[in-house]
Amino acid sequence: MIFEKNIAEGEKLVNVCGVTFGGAGLVIIAGPCTVESREQMLESASAAKEAGASILRGGAFKPRASPYSFQGLRAEGLAILAEARERTGLPVVTEVLDTRDVDEVAAAADMLQVGSRNMHNTALLKAVGAIGLPVLLKRGMSATLQEFLYAAEFVLSAGAKDVVLCERGIRTFENATRFTLDLSAVPLLKERTWLPVVVDPSHATGRSALVPAMARAAVACGADGVMMEVHAHPDRALCDGEQSLTPESLFKTVEGLRAVALAVGRRI
Amino acid sequence: MIFEKNIAEGEKLVNVCGVTFGGAGLVIIAGPCTVESREQMLESASAAKEAGASILRGGAFKPRASPYSFQGLRAEGLAILAEARERTGLPVVTEVLDTRDVDEVAAAADMLQVGSRNMHNTALLKAVGAIGLPVLLKRGMSATLQEFLYAAEFVLSAGAKDVVLCERGIRTFENATRFTLDLSAVPLLKERTWLPVVVDPSHATGRSALVPAMARAAVACGADGVMMEVHAHPDRALCDGEQSLTPESLFKTVEGLRAVALAVGRRI
Amino acid sequence: MIFEKNIAEGEKLVNVCGVTFGGAGLVIIAGPCTVESREQMLESASAAKEAGASILRGGAFKPRASPYSFQGLRAEGLAILAEARERTGLPVVTEVLDTRDVDEVAAAADMLQVGSRNMHNTALLKAVGAIGLPVLLKRGMSATLQEFLYAAEFVLSAGAKDVVLCERGIRTFENATRFTLDLSAVPLLKERTWLPVVVDPSHATGRSALVPAMARAAVACGADGVMMEVHAHPDRALCDGEQSLTPESLFKTVEGLRAVALAVGRRI
Amino acid sequence: MIFEKNIAEGEKLVNVCGVTFGGAGLVIIAGPCTVESREQMLESASAAKEAGASILRGGAFKPRASPYSFQGLRAEGLAILAEARERTGLPVVTEVLDTRDVDEVAAAADMLQVGSRNMHNTALLKAVGAIGLPVLLKRGMSATLQEFLYAAEFVLSAGAKDVVLCERGIRTFENATRFTLDLSAVPLLKERTWLPVVVDPSHATGRSALVPAMARAAVACGADGVMMEVHAHPDRALCDGEQSLTPESLFKTVEGLRAVALAVGRRI
Repeated sequence: MIFEKNIAEGEKLVNVCGVTFGGAGLVIIAGPCTVESREQMLESASAAKEAGASILRGGAFKPRASPYSFQGLRAEGLAILAEARERTGLPVVTEVLDTRDVDEVAAAADMLQVGSRNMHNTALLKAVGAIGLPVLLKRGMSATLQEFLYAAEFVLSAGAKDVVLCERGIRTFENATRFTLDLSAVPLLKERTWLPVVVDPSHATGRSALVPAMARAAVACGADGVMMEVHAHPDRALCDGEQSLTPESLFKTVEGLRAVALAVGRRI
Repeated sequence: MIFEKNIAEGEKLVNVCGVTFGGAGLVIIAGPCTVESREQMLESASAAKEAGASILRGGAFKPRASPYSFQGLRAEGLAILAEARERTGLPVVTEVLDTRDVDEVAAAADMLQVGSRNMHNTALLKAVGAIGLPVLLKRGMSATLQEFLYAAEFVLSAGAKDVVLCERGIRTFENATRFTLDLSAVPLLKERTWLPVVVDPSHATGRSALVPAMARAAVACGADGVMMEVHAHPDRALCDGEQSLTPESLFKTVEGLRAVALAVGRRI
Repeated sequence: MIFEKNIAEGEKLVNVCGVTFGGAGLVIIAGPCTVESREQMLESASAAKEAGASILRGGAFKPRASPYSFQGLRAEGLAILAEARERTGLPVVTEVLDTRDVDEVAAAADMLQVGSRNMHNTALLKAVGAIGLPVLLKRGMSATLQEFLYAAEFVLSAGAKDVVLCERGIRTFENATRFTLDLSAVPLLKERTWLPVVVDPSHATGRSALVPAMARAAVACGADGVMMEVHAHPDRALCDGEQSLTPESLFKTVEGLRAVALAVGRRI
Repeated sequence: MIFEKNIAEGEKLVNVCGVTFGGAGLVIIAGPCTVESREQMLESASAAKEAGASILRGGAFKPRASPYSFQGLRAEGLAILAEARERTGLPVVTEVLDTRDVDEVAAAADMLQVGSRNMHNTALLKAVGAIGLPVLLKRGMSATLQEFLYAAEFVLSAGAKDVVLCERGIRTFENATRFTLDLSAVPLLKERTWLPVVVDPSHATGRSALVPAMARAAVACGADGVMMEVHAHPDRALCDGEQSLTPESLFKTVEGLRAVALAVGRRI
């Protein structure tokens, strides 16, 4: 398996336009769940940068529960992301949902995201891997760690050299949170693979009030980065407003993470 | 929602080349997990027909855990399925994994299957729905019934008129079976939708010894059909041999189902 | 392990005052969740008998989520159960919650029930087993089958000779039902042990509308009996009214079970 | 509900013989899973003290899966715990399994533990609460947070004033760890109740290599303490050796926790 190959320490790094995953520095990925409009995305991007994020996120293609929910701005969203990248200087990660869209999304993104609902979609994994861009692979909501690593292997064996794993919560009986964040996955994955591991406490908990605490926990147990949602007006968000931090709370959250990072010998 | 629309009793039927789902007759779908070779498929197809199946199954494109496992015969598999259909006179249902393959698979199939691992793949749901062929939609291994019905809505809203839902087990803590067959889903789905519901005890349990009992239970609680794997030599199967019935045990299982069907006012 | 010992076919029977579990005849256990009053219990007992039940159930000691919910009539409830037994001639199974109450409950019951919430309570398992009465052991809501059998072993090794296992639903992510009824447990348990297995669709589903279908499924997959709740006025029940059948629906449900039982070579 | 009553900040503290839960200081509880012998317990107690623990743990009564496994030294174990307390000056928390044993265990313990397998055992919750000693209540392995708080309410309403909640992992489909540590429970419980919350990464993960990382994560997300197993010779432990730290690794783990505690404004 490529995911378990022995490599020298210095090679255990994933580079996205100069941002390094897996080293002493932790990577903060932030942005809105969805690109809703030019104004909203640029505002969120600026908040993300100010808070200390080094990668922007934002969905132009959205996997939604209902066919009648907002499905994303698609090409228009990609153009807005490109503008946000230019203004902030931050690289962009965005999700691709369909093998037929991979080229279009790859042309606009610095890192391709495969979401939780597509982790078992092997056709997409292969198509995304063949592009060669870095890939952010989210754990399926009911995937075992073994299956998660196999999904990474689909991407790596198709040609990609850079895969970052993202723990984002699993489905359990507990309904006080949207999913159950499985932080034990962080040290376990780092035992079994050289791939960097980041954590998404926003989707896992589904509640912004829990994001700062769970982001700190992620850093404390060894995550190489944290991915958080930010929205200037969470109450007006078209998607997942309950889990989005405001710009102010994102700023404070990252401040809190800096202290924990130092305590475990890392930095932001 | 299309899935919950009130329709007259006679319209609650899904027709696949003359085979009716949702009426008094129960539909047996049988065949191997995967098309491995011409000989294996024809042998299994003949066993399926002899046992009383009215639809053939067999995968030409396979979603596998590892990129290094057998991924299916693809075009060659579709050709073999076509021959099996011609020989037995039974319509064929087969899985499609990639939006780019939908046309090719649709040309060879009478019913398109969307598997458990792709139930949340909305791009595929829309592409499959747009074809207009009947669709066999398997429940995601961690999908709630609400999400399952939304997935059906993606297919229906894209244009398909005929969707059959398939309960195939959900992921739980219990590891004595491969998945936990959630038979309560059968009466619950039938309360909430007019779509027919079938059950796949082979994938749910992962053990052929449990298939006859769980198939009977499915019929007893109101399923409109049962989908079972059969292989002439389960010990030599390239995929899922432990859960495949032999031709003899398939025959006996269907015999047992006939009695239960009569007890609940149905027939096979 | 006592639970897996090889015994002759004729010995695989559990006898409760003349009612036999594990033979060709299926056992219907019915009654209210809780003994609420003399009138309510006698009415329910009479309905149970009329419908064809051969064992009465009813809780005098109740395990409740909140300390401020009704906790059962205790001694008064046991006296009412005794009267119901006398009037109907049916043996009584009732739950015991505390090692200190075992003697008191045993004096009034024909069969002792250990509930789902106490399946891991080894002190209670031993105390109940030491009495020597037949025991109805419900599966813990998150117990594996292996743990369930070990719990039976605690009872058997303490001296009991007669243990009946009861599948009553496990905790999963699906919230359309109260628990997920795991019917695969029935054939699996019967593979691994000589102990009879019954199913409780009332607690598993938590919805009376699903009880008839799931009871039929239980019989179809080989259960040795079914346990159902009945209440003359489910809307006025102090506990679990949503899952209680009315006397009329219990009667019809048992009628339906007779047909399925015949289809699988059993009788009620 | 007592668990949610508004109380002044200074009252939100649980005191166990001078050790305070819920203040700025974090509490380390350490000791072996089980009291196996005088020598083993004294050795472990001394290691716990040296590492910085302020409460000793050790089971004299053990809830085991099989009736044929070691069930604890009982009275002899309690006497050994008393000696360990005297030698180290540290208060002792130990589990009680049976309402009939509550007085005996209470006479020897400074804090009574109700284990995960008994969280739904309301008879025990009431009996333990009536004693008036502080109680360490572990979350049931499949208990929702709502049920967990109700269990605390049983203890509090029976008379106890001091209850400490312990997250110890829940049962999920993931089998790479023994249970899935649900750290989101920490901030959620602290939102809903004034009761202190501690975390047991040893039982949750079942693997000693994961304990340091998950203990750090617990502190980072706001836990008021951490409970860890230590054994001088984990490979010779009668119970749960795979999850026990050696004295050296416990020492290092607590060192690591001090840094994280400071980063979140706490201390050890």
